[in-house]
Amino acid sequence: MTERTTDTSRRGFLTGSLAAAGGLVAVAGAKAATPDPAITDVQEWNQYLGAGVDDRPYGVPSPHESNVKRRHVEWLTASRESSVNFTPIHDLDGFITPNGLCFERHHAGIAEVDPGKHRLMINGLVDRELVFTMNDLKRFPRMNRFYFLECAANSGMEWRGAQLNGCQFTHGMIHCVQYSGVSLRTILDEAGLKTSAKWIMPEGADASGMNRSVPIEKALDDCMIAFAMNGEALRPEQGYPLRLVVPGWEGNMWVKWLRRIEVGDEPWHAREETSKYTDLMEDGRARRFTWIMDAKSIITNPSPQAPMLHRGHNVLSGLAWSGRGRIDRVDVTLDGGKNWITADLQGPVLPQCLTRFYLNFEWNGEPLLVQSRAIDETGYLQPTKDELRSVRGTNSIYHNNGIQTWHVRDNGEVENVEIS
Amino acid sequence: MTERTTDTSRRGFLTGSLAAAGGLVAVAGAKAATPDPAITDVQEWNQYLGAGVDDRPYGVPSPHESNVKRRHVEWLTASRESSVNFTPIHDLDGFITPNGLCFERHHAGIAEVDPGKHRLMINGLVDRELVFTMNDLKRFPRMNRFYFLECAANSGMEWRGAQLNGCQFTHGMIHCVQYSGVSLRTILDEAGLKTSAKWIMPEGADASGMNRSVPIEKALDDCMIAFAMNGEALRPEQGYPLRLVVPGWEGNMWVKWLRRIEVGDEPWHAREETSKYTDLMEDGRARRFTWIMDAKSIITNPSPQAPMLHRGHNVLSGLAWSGRGRIDRVDVTLDGGKNWITADLQGPVLPQCLTRFYLNFEWNGEPLLVQSRAIDETGYLQPTKDELRSVRGTNSIYHNNGIQTWHVRDNGEVENVEIS
Repeated sequence: MTERTTDTSRRGFLTGSLAAAGGLVAVAGAKAATPDPAITDVQEWNQYLGAGVDDRPYGVPSPHESNVKRRHVEWLTASRESSVNFTPIHDLDGFITPNGLCFERHHAGIAEVDPGKHRLMINGLVDRELVFTMNDLKRFPRMNRFYFLECAANSGMEWRGAQLNGCQFTHGMIHCVQYSGVSLRTILDEAGLKTSAKWIMPEGADASGMNRSVPIEKALDDCMIAFAMNGEALRPEQGYPLRLVVPGWEGNMWVKWLRRIEVGDEPWHAREETSKYTDLMEDGRARRFTWIMDAKSIITNPSPQAPMLHRGHNVLSGLAWSGRGRIDRVDVTLDGGKNWITADLQGPVLPQCLTRFYLNFEWNGEPLLVQSRAIDETGYLQPTKDELRSVRGTNSIYHNNGIQTWHVRDNGEVENVEIS
Repeated sequence: MTERTTDTSRRGFLTGSLAAAGGLVAVAGAKAATPDPAITDVQEWNQYLGAGVDDRPYGVPSPHESNVKRRHVEWLTASRESSVNFTPIHDLDGFITPNGLCFERHHAGIAEVDPGKHRLMINGLVDRELVFTMNDLKRFPRMNRFYFLECAANSGMEWRGAQLNGCQFTHGMIHCVQYSGVSLRTILDEAGLKTSAKWIMPEGADASGMNRSVPIEKALDDCMIAFAMNGEALRPEQGYPLRLVVPGWEGNMWVKWLRRIEVGDEPWHAREETSKYTDLMEDGRARRFTWIMDAKSIITNPSPQAPMLHRGHNVLSGLAWSGRGRIDRVDVTLDGGKNWITADLQGPVLPQCLTRFYLNFEWNGEPLLVQSRAIDETGYLQPTKDELRSVRGTNSIYHNNGIQTWHVRDNGEVENVEIS
């Protein structure tokens, strides 16, 4: 709460919140105002030389940003090695997630792979089974793409109502980076697919041997074998030195520490597509192979760990995405759905990529019920949670893309709520 | 050099370099091949649980990537606090520079600013002089843009011929991130420019009190006051918590730790636009206010620290950019300029942003003289170094955007050379 009383703004954009200059230096024409202690104090950092260029060969954030970190929930998973931590999306801006803050989900901890010894094998229904070194892979035509990666279980606690509080814990199993690598199609072409090839099974080199079945149409469409993210080598927790990229589809299929791709004529019915990553319906049957992540959006600011600090002008900010393509529009309501306002989308708006949206608005201090809803280029409209439940029940933990409601109290604090 | 003898490829993309599967698992139809020691050895990382999700709240690169770091040259500058280190552009891919690897240039070291005490003052020829807190600034309409930042002295040692060896040291004073912040125009409008306002002087809060004169037309066009890069708060060495973004113009003007913007009716003729950051010509006169960074490109791979590893198919990779807008085309020659081939540009191709280009080619092991030349959307063609020298002489250290030549030896090693 940094409200300060000053003279009235001539233009009034931030009426009542700006200090007129006059404390630190003598300036002509400035009205007298309450001196700002911060600028009448000495600001010591211009009194001495700072650290030199050899201080940090690889840089780190300011100590003042130590609160901006991935977080996990102890009771959510059985062990720290088969667990998840969450991206602090309420602390971020733009649509890039810095590599150090990309959420993690492991099934046997972070494999520490030596890239010199790592190999990728292609076997099964191919003309020629192959093994690639990392250097081999870097000789194939290369591509770069920005993609979001969302865990199927993101927002999963919301099926049964508002539970975890905060943007990071409810919706933080998502990140978005620029990937560099080679087209999976190129690699499969090199091996030569047999006409009976209908599915692939990517497999990880970690102790869980993560594997999933991916239909050949997707494999040949837009999948990548990535070795870099945001310009540098993949991070260990993101599958260093190699991961599969499956644009728009649930994160569990983006197999990390990728060591093998088997080509087959039917799915493998692996653990992670039978007992897990299937959607248990109200009647006891399970939806399977529900890979795509439908259009979704979330207001990151304000949110429970990012309260409103001021009355008057404010920027509401959030993220929208769709596994089916580009975001076409994001609507925001401040009154629980009575009125919807179209938000500003910040470009470039890319397919299967996060899109940052902003809404400039005035806050008079009354409580708010803020929501956002995304519409993608296919015309799909993000549903309410109740609409989702009417079709899919409340047994699942996956694929919850329902509209989120934050309740902003008159003191600026924010909580996770549900409204009907 | 990882060449291995195997059976002949059916498709032949990487003829002679791929191991047929057969060492690790029994596979039908694979020909016998020399077993690959790496895959017949145990790969120990799938034998145990890796680190858990609480291991790294803020992630770091793999220990195997410890060679990927910023580097400085001891003799280049007077002290470590007034010095530069260089982005390892030969180790990167895509067009994003990860925040930890963005080159630094300081004049009094890295100021360690407390954002709670930091203020931005607008004074001079304005209707109302103002002081903003960081929270104040975040209430103005926000924007995100990808921009490259290049030091005017990048490639400066090349004026007198090939000297420093390697992509990092010759051309590594450049980075490219997504900035988030507010339009400078919005902030100047809030203060209200007097009709006599023709220039602004941004000033840093570090001990050097860095300041530069920026014409009002540029200030009102596309400048930003940024508080985030690649999604998170600015790094300390990049001006945390606030820096000026001056798209397409020399990096020295992107004042870090931005604490004040004075509005005036003429330039200030500060140290950094008189004794430095001016271009001394052959006749002893100096070009001044040469702010824009003209179109340029560099082949990052192969380059001296990224030698050729294989004959046969290879990916040549590089970066192109222009302060005047988008890159329209990049040509590459392998024979010192006799033949030019158009490279593939990876999208999105954005204005005043790095653009990654690739060229797939076959190498027969003969020596190469590789060069790239960028053409931007204004039709400007990157010049040769000799063309630059014929106009500007060799006294300057700034604004060298001449075509770079790498000599690839028959053993794959690469050196910095010049050819006429």
